[in-house]
Amino acid sequence: MTSVTSRVQVERVNSGGAAETFFDTLAVEEPLEIRLAWTDGCEKHERPIAVTMRTPGQDVELALGFLWSEGVITQHDQVGRCSADGNLVRVELQAGVRVDLGALDRHVYVSSSCGVCGKASIGSVRTRSSFPATHQPGPLLDARLVNGIPPALRAAQSVFDVTGGLHAAALFDERGMLTNLREDVGRHNAVDKLVGAALLKGELPLYARVLALSGRASFELIQKATMAGLRVVAAVGAPSSLAVELARESKMTLLGFVRDSRFNVYSGAERITGTGSCHEALTC
Amino acid sequence: MTSVTSRVQVERVNSGGAAETFFDTLAVEEPLEIRLAWTDGCEKHERPIAVTMRTPGQDVELALGFLWSEGVITQHDQVGRCSADGNLVRVELQAGVRVDLGALDRHVYVSSSCGVCGKASIGSVRTRSSFPATHQPGPLLDARLVNGIPPALRAAQSVFDVTGGLHAAALFDERGMLTNLREDVGRHNAVDKLVGAALLKGELPLYARVLALSGRASFELIQKATMAGLRVVAAVGAPSSLAVELARESKMTLLGFVRDSRFNVYSGAERITGTGSCHEALTC
Repeated sequence: MTSVTSRVQVERVNSGGAAETFFDTLAVEEPLEIRLAWTDGCEKHERPIAVTMRTPGQDVELALGFLWSEGVITQHDQVGRCSADGNLVRVELQAGVRVDLGALDRHVYVSSSCGVCGKASIGSVRTRSSFPATHQPGPLLDARLVNGIPPALRAAQSVFDVTGGLHAAALFDERGMLTNLREDVGRHNAVDKLVGAALLKGELPLYARVLALSGRASFELIQKATMAGLRVVAAVGAPSSLAVELARESKMTLLGFVRDSRFNVYSGAERITGTGSCHEALTC
Repeated sequence: MTSVTSRVQVERVNSGGAAETFFDTLAVEEPLEIRLAWTDGCEKHERPIAVTMRTPGQDVELALGFLWSEGVITQHDQVGRCSADGNLVRVELQAGVRVDLGALDRHVYVSSSCGVCGKASIGSVRTRSSFPATHQPGPLLDARLVNGIPPALRAAQSVFDVTGGLHAAALFDERGMLTNLREDVGRHNAVDKLVGAALLKGELPLYARVLALSGRASFELIQKATMAGLRVVAAVGAPSSLAVELARESKMTLLGFVRDSRFNVYSGAERITGTGSCHEALTC
């Protein structure tokens, strides 16, 4: 139940119609229930907060990253005992920590005069973030270091190599060194695991780090990055419209299509160094 | 708010560090609130059921497909008036239709003796499906037709071509002809839109169709396929372990890595024709 890959017997059919039997390695997907326990005065509370389909492993990190992204945990020292048992993880908060369960209910959007819309979603992030669009400069990043991110990411993706079925999220420092990586069938889980690991090490907010994503950049992922204080996100795939809007609103640097030694800068170009306009550069 | 793509000014940095400004086309992502309205005796009820981040367009289909997948709607004639307005869609059920809101609360997993686990998730699908692992044979599919699916899918993916940011789900008949396609930033939304469109046309269950997925096959997508009565799913990407388990349990044919004129058969090989073992075929 806790292994990251599983093997199944399958038939492989090639272009000539020939079938051969072999054992394929799959990325494991299992549900995880996240439970939150806290005390309110003398009263003890415990309730299930979410069920997510995830790849087993680093379940405490996943739960902590999720609770942080949702604005339920806002400081490192609020976390008490955590335990993982099979597909259940339990996070206990320190005595006296006030729980804003409303933060969970406000998930994704808030009611506002404009109803449900992208602006409201962005407003919701602004309300919940402990690290709102600050004047934190974040790292400066040389364009050549950006181009080094996809190969470094791929080299470290041990499970993807055998299954082809996992998303990866990784942190890089401003010299382009990979400092941590997590893989999961769900891209949001991979980011939650990274954020949870940083929380456990007391490393939040991640002002000085770059978040690299193996796939596309959705609103939800940029939301999680914002909540973690990240100032630079580099995605191998395309960003969505709302991801770009939130990045611009948060004064975050958002890079997309980072592959084949090229990338697009959707927001925050001032953090990218070593670039010139076409007539200054050697190649164009 | 209802356009499928939006254009933003970005900088493109090439491998030499040269930057040029251009307008990039993004896939639009916006939240959608799904509301359900029904009458219970003389009493009228209405409540928000879900908020999903989606690409605008076919919102009624998306809502209907979602409600079908969740087991809230189980028959075509249960649906009354539906309306979409900006990022809000409202589905009214016909008078007298009983609503099982518990079906929504049982989402993803059920409590059972084994707690939260893949087996419970699969059990939950079995409970809710109107078309459980039946003896419906489903289509027979020639291996060469399977290999024709990815190019046909790609050719029909109009928005992906310009944004690189959308997932696609499509239905094919057993002659390999594409009969419908939907694109969305969320892969589950693309499938919901397909299922909702089929519901509106009175085409459910989709016993005779093949569901093609542009990416990976997760448990959730196979769950939606099962609920729609689909017997064959062909994914361009990798399946997860739980997707394979559910497909096998449902006696569904699940094909993965359908690309470059090859594919893997994870379940239900009896529906694939035109294959031979290695020593019978021309190439191996």
